[in-house]
Amino acid sequence: MSDESVAPVGPPDAAILRDPLQSSHSTSQGPTPSIPPWTADKSSLKQNFTVASHLKPSGTAGPKLLQIERSHASFSSEALTTYLYGQPFLDRQAKLLNIIQDEEAFDKTRLNYQGRSERFRHALRKEKRFVQLAKEHHWDAEDTAMAEMLIDMPGPFSLHKSMFLKTLTEQGDDEQQELFTRRAEKFEIIGCYAQTELGHGSNVQGLETTAMYDPKTKEFVINSPFLTASKWWIGGLGRSADHAVVMAQLITNEAKHGPHPFVVPIRDLITREPLEGRTIGDIGPKLGYQTTDNGMLLFDHVRIPHNHLLSRFSKVDPDTGVYVKPQNAKLAYGTMTYIRAGIVQQARAVLARACTVAVRYCAIRRQFVDKDAPMDGKKPAENQVLDYQMVQYRIFPIIAQAFACHYTGKEMFRLYSESQKNMAEGDFSLLADVHASSSGLKSLTTIMAAQAIEECRRACGGHGFSQASGLGALYADYLPQVTWEGDSYMITQQTGRYLFKTMRTLYADPNAKLSAENVTGEYILRYLSNPEAKSPVRYSGDFHDVEAFVLAFGHRAAYLIAQATRKRDIERRTWNSLLVDIYRCSVAHCQFILVRNFAQAILHDSALKTNPALHQIVKVVFELFACHTMDIEASEFLASGYINPSQHTLLRNRVYALLAQIRPEAVALVDSLAIPDYLLNSELGRYDGNVYENLIAFAAREPLNGVRFNVNPWDEELAIGEPKLSKL
Amino acid sequence: MSDESVAPVGPPDAAILRDPLQSSHSTSQGPTPSIPPWTADKSSLKQNFTVASHLKPSGTAGPKLLQIERSHASFSSEALTTYLYGQPFLDRQAKLLNIIQDEEAFDKTRLNYQGRSERFRHALRKEKRFVQLAKEHHWDAEDTAMAEMLIDMPGPFSLHKSMFLKTLTEQGDDEQQELFTRRAEKFEIIGCYAQTELGHGSNVQGLETTAMYDPKTKEFVINSPFLTASKWWIGGLGRSADHAVVMAQLITNEAKHGPHPFVVPIRDLITREPLEGRTIGDIGPKLGYQTTDNGMLLFDHVRIPHNHLLSRFSKVDPDTGVYVKPQNAKLAYGTMTYIRAGIVQQARAVLARACTVAVRYCAIRRQFVDKDAPMDGKKPAENQVLDYQMVQYRIFPIIAQAFACHYTGKEMFRLYSESQKNMAEGDFSLLADVHASSSGLKSLTTIMAAQAIEECRRACGGHGFSQASGLGALYADYLPQVTWEGDSYMITQQTGRYLFKTMRTLYADPNAKLSAENVTGEYILRYLSNPEAKSPVRYSGDFHDVEAFVLAFGHRAAYLIAQATRKRDIERRTWNSLLVDIYRCSVAHCQFILVRNFAQAILHDSALKTNPALHQIVKVVFELFACHTMDIEASEFLASGYINPSQHTLLRNRVYALLAQIRPEAVALVDSLAIPDYLLNSELGRYDGNVYENLIAFAAREPLNGVRFNVNPWDEELAIGEPKLSKL
Repeated sequence: MSDESVAPVGPPDAAILRDPLQSSHSTSQGPTPSIPPWTADKSSLKQNFTVASHLKPSGTAGPKLLQIERSHASFSSEALTTYLYGQPFLDRQAKLLNIIQDEEAFDKTRLNYQGRSERFRHALRKEKRFVQLAKEHHWDAEDTAMAEMLIDMPGPFSLHKSMFLKTLTEQGDDEQQELFTRRAEKFEIIGCYAQTELGHGSNVQGLETTAMYDPKTKEFVINSPFLTASKWWIGGLGRSADHAVVMAQLITNEAKHGPHPFVVPIRDLITREPLEGRTIGDIGPKLGYQTTDNGMLLFDHVRIPHNHLLSRFSKVDPDTGVYVKPQNAKLAYGTMTYIRAGIVQQARAVLARACTVAVRYCAIRRQFVDKDAPMDGKKPAENQVLDYQMVQYRIFPIIAQAFACHYTGKEMFRLYSESQKNMAEGDFSLLADVHASSSGLKSLTTIMAAQAIEECRRACGGHGFSQASGLGALYADYLPQVTWEGDSYMITQQTGRYLFKTMRTLYADPNAKLSAENVTGEYILRYLSNPEAKSPVRYSGDFHDVEAFVLAFGHRAAYLIAQATRKRDIERRTWNSLLVDIYRCSVAHCQFILVRNFAQAILHDSALKTNPALHQIVKVVFELFACHTMDIEASEFLASGYINPSQHTLLRNRVYALLAQIRPEAVALVDSLAIPDYLLNSELGRYDGNVYENLIAFAAREPLNGVRFNVNPWDEELAIGEPKLSKL
Repeated sequence: MSDESVAPVGPPDAAILRDPLQSSHSTSQGPTPSIPPWTADKSSLKQNFTVASHLKPSGTAGPKLLQIERSHASFSSEALTTYLYGQPFLDRQAKLLNIIQDEEAFDKTRLNYQGRSERFRHALRKEKRFVQLAKEHHWDAEDTAMAEMLIDMPGPFSLHKSMFLKTLTEQGDDEQQELFTRRAEKFEIIGCYAQTELGHGSNVQGLETTAMYDPKTKEFVINSPFLTASKWWIGGLGRSADHAVVMAQLITNEAKHGPHPFVVPIRDLITREPLEGRTIGDIGPKLGYQTTDNGMLLFDHVRIPHNHLLSRFSKVDPDTGVYVKPQNAKLAYGTMTYIRAGIVQQARAVLARACTVAVRYCAIRRQFVDKDAPMDGKKPAENQVLDYQMVQYRIFPIIAQAFACHYTGKEMFRLYSESQKNMAEGDFSLLADVHASSSGLKSLTTIMAAQAIEECRRACGGHGFSQASGLGALYADYLPQVTWEGDSYMITQQTGRYLFKTMRTLYADPNAKLSAENVTGEYILRYLSNPEAKSPVRYSGDFHDVEAFVLAFGHRAAYLIAQATRKRDIERRTWNSLLVDIYRCSVAHCQFILVRNFAQAILHDSALKTNPALHQIVKVVFELFACHTMDIEASEFLASGYINPSQHTLLRNRVYALLAQIRPEAVALVDSLAIPDYLLNSELGRYDGNVYENLIAFAAREPLNGVRFNVNPWDEELAIGEPKLSKL
């Protein structure tokens, strides 16, 4: 059954054996290890059976197949890595991996075999060890963030380290920094951020928890008037936190002032029992995040001192209870934009993880002989699954999406800095633009990344369903991104409002002043000046025109915005009856943004343009992203009249041609995304290609393999040697 | 914060309080219970905390909201239930629920809180109890199948009861029925079906396990020559089975005869240790199916007697080793078609479960005030989430898909019986048709159902991520359907080959004889006679024409088949370069089938037409299915020239209008799908609407809530009272 005879392996040559870090394009310094420093193969778990050592996988072995794949590439994947991330990022990653990947407390392989309780215990252990190591190695904020990303194990301290400390720092006054922040930084108190309630997630204004000021005792009374007022989903609250920042409706002198943040002690620091008047619990099993104790919390008229309202912005006079309003609420949009830029960048990483696993494993897995293979008497070898066009069609666009998110993530951080500068000078216009796009991009990229994980998992066939794929756990833990920080199906209304407004402004006055760098205004103006524009594409070669995609996506977005604005303003339709149209406007706008930022890099990025091999491959990836996205959204390009049916046929065929063009570059492309094995945590996607041996090792670690079972249906004994059912 | 004041509750009236089983359309007999017999609310797990009993959810309570919703419907959901399933099905369901839903061994609520090992133990217990009850109550095959469906807990005996027994029965000769089948029926031996290997799933011909006949000893030697030959994913093999039907490459007298089934003893019946020469293990954690011990198995030259090759069809002469070929291999297609009809019907059930949870919970959940709500001084109530068009757009089409799968599942079973009859008369033509469509339908409906579960889960917002939604576990356990029984992305090639062939036949000769009832031939002929046909739609009202959708979907499918066949036959493209086109042909063909079978019911089903209320609502559901499917596939209708841009705009607006029309019927529609609470296993989707109280109870059952943790990062103690880390 070996296909060795016809596989194109031949004698190893220099190109095949070259070390990926020693290519001529490599920019790394010093002695080079024989495999990238991010490859790890460690597990401290017991193996419950062994397999005869003479048995090998049939046919060409995985490592050799990947070697061959790597030798096909037209570019240096290490040079592309360095171009994408920069050397300081890669150095930091290598430094941290060196510290963390051998720590037993950070061993991720064991999580697969553990139930909820063990996972939570393991995560608590990880949190403690993390605090110790961060201190020992003097990690700065960037080290810490990257180490958390690599360990990839949301734990009971996650919200303490993020929202709890952030809220204290930003919203506490000087006294409160001493009272709370300093102690939280030293982990003397552990906190959580209690905003979401059982009955209210997205609608913060609708929160039911109240904080009534009592001037007589100079205390706030925190209360949950309804069952639905219970705080819910709060990370770290279930079993860990002793303090909570609680968002509650502030009431003073019988007037309501909306939600405000209060610091409330909730558990005894020593006994860890809930303090009086608090009902606290873990909310139970979830699809993912099993290492985190998301919790619930009900207050029965709990009294806290006056100085527990975080008072940097809003204040309550202790004696009279008079409320002092905060200044400039717009500042909050800056933080939201920053968080959402991070979400786009995280989507890049998730897309990269998913396609790395699928591409590498599909290059190793073989299944079926090609239908058109010559029947010359010899039994032909089975195809690498990666050769099937249908597989390419499902996973190569995901590589392209990772690149698209890379460029737009970078651009969002740049615009964030730019808008912060402008705001310091009193100009908030850019912030409004960026905030609007960031809502739609949060929606689009989280939905895209979640779908990509599942698509890549399925492309791995049966083994994709094993936790050894690493994609099941990734999916389960990524899913909340689609729902939190603004539900990805509803948040697009923020983008829609902005798009409608821009359309109205420019329709009324094409010379209206917009913010600097207003790319939305640009494409809307172009559309308004020529709504009947047509794509100039006549030959498949015309799809090489990078700028043409920017024009096409801009025209389609503007067309949808014009239609929807017309329905709202002329036909007087209700907002609710336009929600699907608005969602589509947001998707179209954000796909324009992704195409536009990617195109900018192809056209103007000097670091890219000076390296012809890199420039060429990234341009091909861009074309795939643009053509594939245009194809899946083709109905809107067709309906707007921008493309006609024969151009549509050209487009689909162009996608197929690009898939074939990417095929020999695919493994090198995912290598260039530089996801360390430790982060990948996937036997299918390992850098070294030793898939099948490691699937056996994965099976052998299953604890059930240490138990024998009694299958007689008339016998109460379940496991041999364990007590009978009736004794339990 | 209560919105009681403005919610449209008013004084309860007869319509609101009517019992759903007592409506005038009800066809049920005898005394009527106050809630449907399929509503269960039982859990034997310990509650780790309690909540003050005076606390209630704010606003209108869930049960009342659902009551109001139910009172809005224009039809009797019970009458629709009876129409869809028939009274015998419902009686059987009620009878079985009565027996199983109070059995502790069948308690599904606890699975959420258990790790892999406990889940497996619980499932083994379930299997034993099931055997006992089936005997006690004299369950027939239909009872057993329905009980398994309701308990919904794949276990270590699943493959014993299905493929193992089925293969023995169908492929064993008379001696083997005594030797194996009788003992397996009495559970004296437990078996599994060992086909898939570590390196080969879909490609059965590529299996590596060998069975070499040794005439000297009259034994077969079963061997795994490579690591990749290891049997893998085999249900029940990991810890349970003592026998396996092993598919292995038969070799006699040095000639290869392809894969054949052998019965191989693998474990000692008493000690449960693997027999000599077998390496057996559970393959480790998976995304779902945690209650099943999927296993691996390697053979080191294991000898089995001659009578262990299942010999009803193929035989090996014991003395000479001469191989006798089986007759008529086409019979196998009948079984495959039957299995796939079952997959379509299962997709119906999965779609029904998913949309039941989402629709009911979205009718209870409230979030945000309508943007267009009048500002008349009173604070307006928050919207039911089900009122948002974007939510409707995501979940109402799933109700329609459930109905579509219902009719096509029924039709497939009818065609299966019909083709069995024909075959008895030597006519295999219908079987070929049905088999081809069944491949594409398997692909389309499994992908559709998997996507629907996740869409409905997301529509539940944050709580969708809790296992209390019931949708996480459903998704995890449903996913293998997309991959097994023919990978849903590759199996469409079978449909494609048939479509190409039909196109070629009719292109060459429009009068060529096809099988009876050949709907494929019909639409292809229509297309060939007028490839430039245009949709006649001019007004939105034209979308009421049921027949017009059948024509439209037929034209679009034929257009794609014509294009793809042209590429293959005229442009001489490789098969591989057409895989995406072929997939699209299959999707288009199967969407035609779904629309066509649904349309047939609307046009011709007398049971439906005699009840105007039912006929009207089912017709609206049909229109939503047809319009929504046409909209998501609009690019192909546009590209073929069948519809033009202004018809496309009409179409999208028609979808929105249908969503609004379904809104008041939505809860009654999902009620009519009659998924019992016991099967639903969802606190969000419960029939009674008591969502929030039960989310609290769900949280209180979390075992972690019985433990207190030490969060001091410098202290090795994790859980208070448990041994320190260094002691472990």
